[in-house]
Amino acid sequence: METIGKSYDLIAMGRSSIDLYSNDIGAPFEEITAFAAYVGGCPTNISVGTRRLGLRPALLTAVGDDQVGNFILHFLRREGVETQFIPRKLGRRSSAVVLGIEPPDRFPLTYYRDNCADIELTIDDVLATPLADCHVLLISGTGLSKEPSRSATLFAAELARQGGATVVLDIDYRPDQWNDQRAFGVTLRSALRLVDIVIGTEDEINAAMLTDTTQISIAHSQISDARVRGDTDAAIQQLLTLGPRVLVQKLGATGSRVHIVSEPGEGETRRIDVPGFPVEVQNILGAGDAFAAGFIYGVVNGWDWYKAARMGNACGAILVTKHGCANFMPTYDELMTFIQDHGGF
Amino acid sequence: METIGKSYDLIAMGRSSIDLYSNDIGAPFEEITAFAAYVGGCPTNISVGTRRLGLRPALLTAVGDDQVGNFILHFLRREGVETQFIPRKLGRRSSAVVLGIEPPDRFPLTYYRDNCADIELTIDDVLATPLADCHVLLISGTGLSKEPSRSATLFAAELARQGGATVVLDIDYRPDQWNDQRAFGVTLRSALRLVDIVIGTEDEINAAMLTDTTQISIAHSQISDARVRGDTDAAIQQLLTLGPRVLVQKLGATGSRVHIVSEPGEGETRRIDVPGFPVEVQNILGAGDAFAAGFIYGVVNGWDWYKAARMGNACGAILVTKHGCANFMPTYDELMTFIQDHGGF
Amino acid sequence: METIGKSYDLIAMGRSSIDLYSNDIGAPFEEITAFAAYVGGCPTNISVGTRRLGLRPALLTAVGDDQVGNFILHFLRREGVETQFIPRKLGRRSSAVVLGIEPPDRFPLTYYRDNCADIELTIDDVLATPLADCHVLLISGTGLSKEPSRSATLFAAELARQGGATVVLDIDYRPDQWNDQRAFGVTLRSALRLVDIVIGTEDEINAAMLTDTTQISIAHSQISDARVRGDTDAAIQQLLTLGPRVLVQKLGATGSRVHIVSEPGEGETRRIDVPGFPVEVQNILGAGDAFAAGFIYGVVNGWDWYKAARMGNACGAILVTKHGCANFMPTYDELMTFIQDHGGF
Amino acid sequence: METIGKSYDLIAMGRSSIDLYSNDIGAPFEEITAFAAYVGGCPTNISVGTRRLGLRPALLTAVGDDQVGNFILHFLRREGVETQFIPRKLGRRSSAVVLGIEPPDRFPLTYYRDNCADIELTIDDVLATPLADCHVLLISGTGLSKEPSRSATLFAAELARQGGATVVLDIDYRPDQWNDQRAFGVTLRSALRLVDIVIGTEDEINAAMLTDTTQISIAHSQISDARVRGDTDAAIQQLLTLGPRVLVQKLGATGSRVHIVSEPGEGETRRIDVPGFPVEVQNILGAGDAFAAGFIYGVVNGWDWYKAARMGNACGAILVTKHGCANFMPTYDELMTFIQDHGGF
Repeated sequence: METIGKSYDLIAMGRSSIDLYSNDIGAPFEEITAFAAYVGGCPTNISVGTRRLGLRPALLTAVGDDQVGNFILHFLRREGVETQFIPRKLGRRSSAVVLGIEPPDRFPLTYYRDNCADIELTIDDVLATPLADCHVLLISGTGLSKEPSRSATLFAAELARQGGATVVLDIDYRPDQWNDQRAFGVTLRSALRLVDIVIGTEDEINAAMLTDTTQISIAHSQISDARVRGDTDAAIQQLLTLGPRVLVQKLGATGSRVHIVSEPGEGETRRIDVPGFPVEVQNILGAGDAFAAGFIYGVVNGWDWYKAARMGNACGAILVTKHGCANFMPTYDELMTFIQDHGGF
Repeated sequence: METIGKSYDLIAMGRSSIDLYSNDIGAPFEEITAFAAYVGGCPTNISVGTRRLGLRPALLTAVGDDQVGNFILHFLRREGVETQFIPRKLGRRSSAVVLGIEPPDRFPLTYYRDNCADIELTIDDVLATPLADCHVLLISGTGLSKEPSRSATLFAAELARQGGATVVLDIDYRPDQWNDQRAFGVTLRSALRLVDIVIGTEDEINAAMLTDTTQISIAHSQISDARVRGDTDAAIQQLLTLGPRVLVQKLGATGSRVHIVSEPGEGETRRIDVPGFPVEVQNILGAGDAFAAGFIYGVVNGWDWYKAARMGNACGAILVTKHGCANFMPTYDELMTFIQDHGGF
Repeated sequence: METIGKSYDLIAMGRSSIDLYSNDIGAPFEEITAFAAYVGGCPTNISVGTRRLGLRPALLTAVGDDQVGNFILHFLRREGVETQFIPRKLGRRSSAVVLGIEPPDRFPLTYYRDNCADIELTIDDVLATPLADCHVLLISGTGLSKEPSRSATLFAAELARQGGATVVLDIDYRPDQWNDQRAFGVTLRSALRLVDIVIGTEDEINAAMLTDTTQISIAHSQISDARVRGDTDAAIQQLLTLGPRVLVQKLGATGSRVHIVSEPGEGETRRIDVPGFPVEVQNILGAGDAFAAGFIYGVVNGWDWYKAARMGNACGAILVTKHGCANFMPTYDELMTFIQDHGGF
Repeated sequence: METIGKSYDLIAMGRSSIDLYSNDIGAPFEEITAFAAYVGGCPTNISVGTRRLGLRPALLTAVGDDQVGNFILHFLRREGVETQFIPRKLGRRSSAVVLGIEPPDRFPLTYYRDNCADIELTIDDVLATPLADCHVLLISGTGLSKEPSRSATLFAAELARQGGATVVLDIDYRPDQWNDQRAFGVTLRSALRLVDIVIGTEDEINAAMLTDTTQISIAHSQISDARVRGDTDAAIQQLLTLGPRVLVQKLGATGSRVHIVSEPGEGETRRIDVPGFPVEVQNILGAGDAFAAGFIYGVVNGWDWYKAARMGNACGAILVTKHGCANFMPTYDELMTFIQDHGGF
């Protein structure tokens, strides 16, 4: 990775939203009386998370010419995430998410992403962003769900790699954003040639290798947390033949597991198990993005895989105890204290 | 009006939404930290308003197969509004509104209506609703904004009139729901042949007769409250040649004015000024719908225009002192007490 | 009708196409080896027909930025139809029709009208056309099928009437251009307030008053010639209460029948039967448009209804003996000779 | 290649159309009076071409429920191409092409592909086709232009490779089928991981590696023949690192050139120049598809690259002397006679 003189540690590309999270913890969705207003979206969360840890991130998303767009931009600027590459898309709507919170395991969710602004990111928007001037480009699976964002995301990955950046893909599997779940898999597989590091849960890894829709089940409108059956070990092996050299498997409370290609072209991989931190769950949404923020912090700083993933685990652990996503990302000091209090790296 | 033996006093047709209203009264939109969760949408508000006054309303809207749809239906059922004619539209989203509240005059608003369920109402949905079995059909301008709802709304009005019902149109002018503001006018004018009573503000009456977009101005994203210049008296006269026999002009704090065709075909009209009730404004949204609920209560009960409009004025006055729309509609007793306390009818 | 000083006798608004008509008369569609290339589309045919009779028509259609658009414009200019108000719609396609010819009664047809240019006519296009400067505005039912053409067509009719023009509506019922056939009826009925004279076949008159889709049947892909059952006499009476003062019923070989409102508002009508001319049918497509051209010629010249309709009958009779539509419209001399040879007016 | 017991020598997947080709050779488009009716579309042409040479091809395209669909299927069945896997897409239109012919170098063309049936091919359609039971799967660039065809095409290629088939990609670059020309390149590059053999012209090879739209120019509406500048040698080298082991460069009258990866992973390639056959050009459309048919004949029969490409050159040479595409593909005997008459292989 050519890092000397790069202006941004991270460019995160993809969706953003106003996240409206139930203030009536435990109430069924129909009984909710108020929602807290946060900012969210996988790449947005990751950009804020890395900023709070001290990195220099830019976000390439898009918002509409509406109040919600103002809300999102206002938050990002206050956080110090670079917003100058974010276009306003006239006639398109800033995304929104409405979420019920019934711990430990029901988080029903409705996306407002029809005609949304961030899926309108174009190759021209990509060309207006300094992709050769970052250490890491973070893209996400949802960014590949529809045109023109799909082509723009692939184009961004090409440019970033040409510029020497590391391309990280968060699988970010959201079934309701895809007309055919098998299209998710085949699209993702075709994108992997441009990816160095993949991050996903077991369900997401299975979804990425999916060929049969009967593998999927979604309970309680939890579109952000579909169950996808499959031979996960085979899926991991297959995925690592398609381009990436590292696959980070998020394991929830257990921690994470890093799969690394030993010899490119030879098909051999090794794995590192990285333990998690025990905490009480309030809201799982955003925990995976917090993990990614911590892990990318390690990647940018040249840490070994174990330490980077352990940093990610700590970030995720803190976030599950919180109400929202981006607004609750831990700072560097908060994170270091947490890790020390839990036995260190 | 043939009222004997009708099952519903009112069938209200058109949009519905989850209404997310700022809990930080006075805060600029970017600084909002939480939203109260209500139900709204012009015809939905009116159906709830008439129910609380004791009428028997049914609502013909549509919701998506999502949590927000559950939320809307749950509220309506609790209120006692008939929901059996409301279809679920697969692949469509229940509408949402996000609103800032900065009294006395800034209520910035973002609609989530792209690909929304209620605009997917079809003629088949209309045929599944007993339009010959109501006293009043209430339709709204937004229901005419896009297909298939536009044709379905016209079809419903035809059926209702054939069945002897009174057709009331709430102009409900929402500029961002129309690709061309002049299309709003020409579409509305073509619908008036099927309408008995029109309800609107001065701005809305001007919009209905609009031919030139320079007449319109929208401040502070107040899409629900566009300013439309024009010769309002001429607009009223023109409107009353196109079908309706009554036009009710809502005048805000001042009250309302009822314009009545004296001799059909002769072009003569008379007007009745109906004073309002002085109150302190918290949130103007929904006040017009409260007016319509009170006014329709009078129509169904065969009251004279003055008393019906006075009832509407009282309803609206109470609502502007409240935080939301449907959830805050006054009951009959509440309303009667308010009117008595303010000098009676 | 204020005719003095008007620049155009007719402005015809609506669809245009390249018409590809089988050169293998009698062959089933699958066996066709070549198609003749003509120009067509109801308002386009009528504009060319009136031009050949000596009137001064302008056409308000739209074409794409493609070869077929060049083809259509080239033909219109050669004919002397005014084309300066015709916009090119970038990214939209000029319409096309592919037609099999199996006399006497099978004319299977495929429309290419997806994303077509002429349905993209806007209110701005209408405002750029001198609608106050014509004697007759001809609109068609297909122009009401989709936005933005629908609103633009209504807007044009409003402007034309304000300018003192006579508005003629060709019902032009094409089932495959409507998502719901009942939407055709309700839309047409709402447009009639702006129409002076309606032209249609018995099937089309029934379709305009349609409320039940089981009335319709389409044989042999003859989208231009759907059968629509109904009580035609009742439909005629109903239609004449909705605005028009004259309804011209095209009767094919039999001729035509003109229905006239005797006393506006009283519901009384009288009718005039106008005999046709016996000829051998080659291709019925375009015959109705030829009728309209001849009839409008009479209207512009202030002829009585009988003579105008008889002129229309003659025009139609000549055209059914021909292979195509616009390209075969008779000239004034040709028409007069034909009428004289067949017993005069 | 596992060929024993396979039911189909070729499954060709992608577009089909009625091809309407000017019968007025040399006339400018505006002056055309008639069009011959043929069948076309890159994969369709190739399927017919291989059938005439004696192979057993199936075509996986889609047609609408319209007369043109009947026309296309009727022709394919007469030719003996397997059509049982071709779905009818309700509400979608069979594609059409309208072409002017002004030799030697102007062939202006208008595609009718809005809302077309063949781009609606789905993964379900792919799963209903025996992709494991063919020697060669032929896909084309246009099939990757829009969803759901894009995902379905990638899915088909995955299945075919799993089944042991050779995947051939005809680049088939049609600029007007892509919203952004750079999206063409990035999409194609992501598909190449699934491709064994690529066929394209110099312009198409440059387009596949395109990153800058200023490289493209289109003259005379020749959408089937865009000029794309670029460093073709570099493009060829780059393309051969992305998956395919063979790239066949079509050189028009000059013949063709086969580029072969010597050592996978090493980046070394060798090339074979294969001379063409001198003929007089009538219509270049379809010549490339004829080449592909001849070349695939060689591949299926296990010929060396030189002989296969020479077979392709002969096929293409014969076709440029003809008026249309699929309808004029040479038979095996015709081709062998032609090759012998021109000096043999």
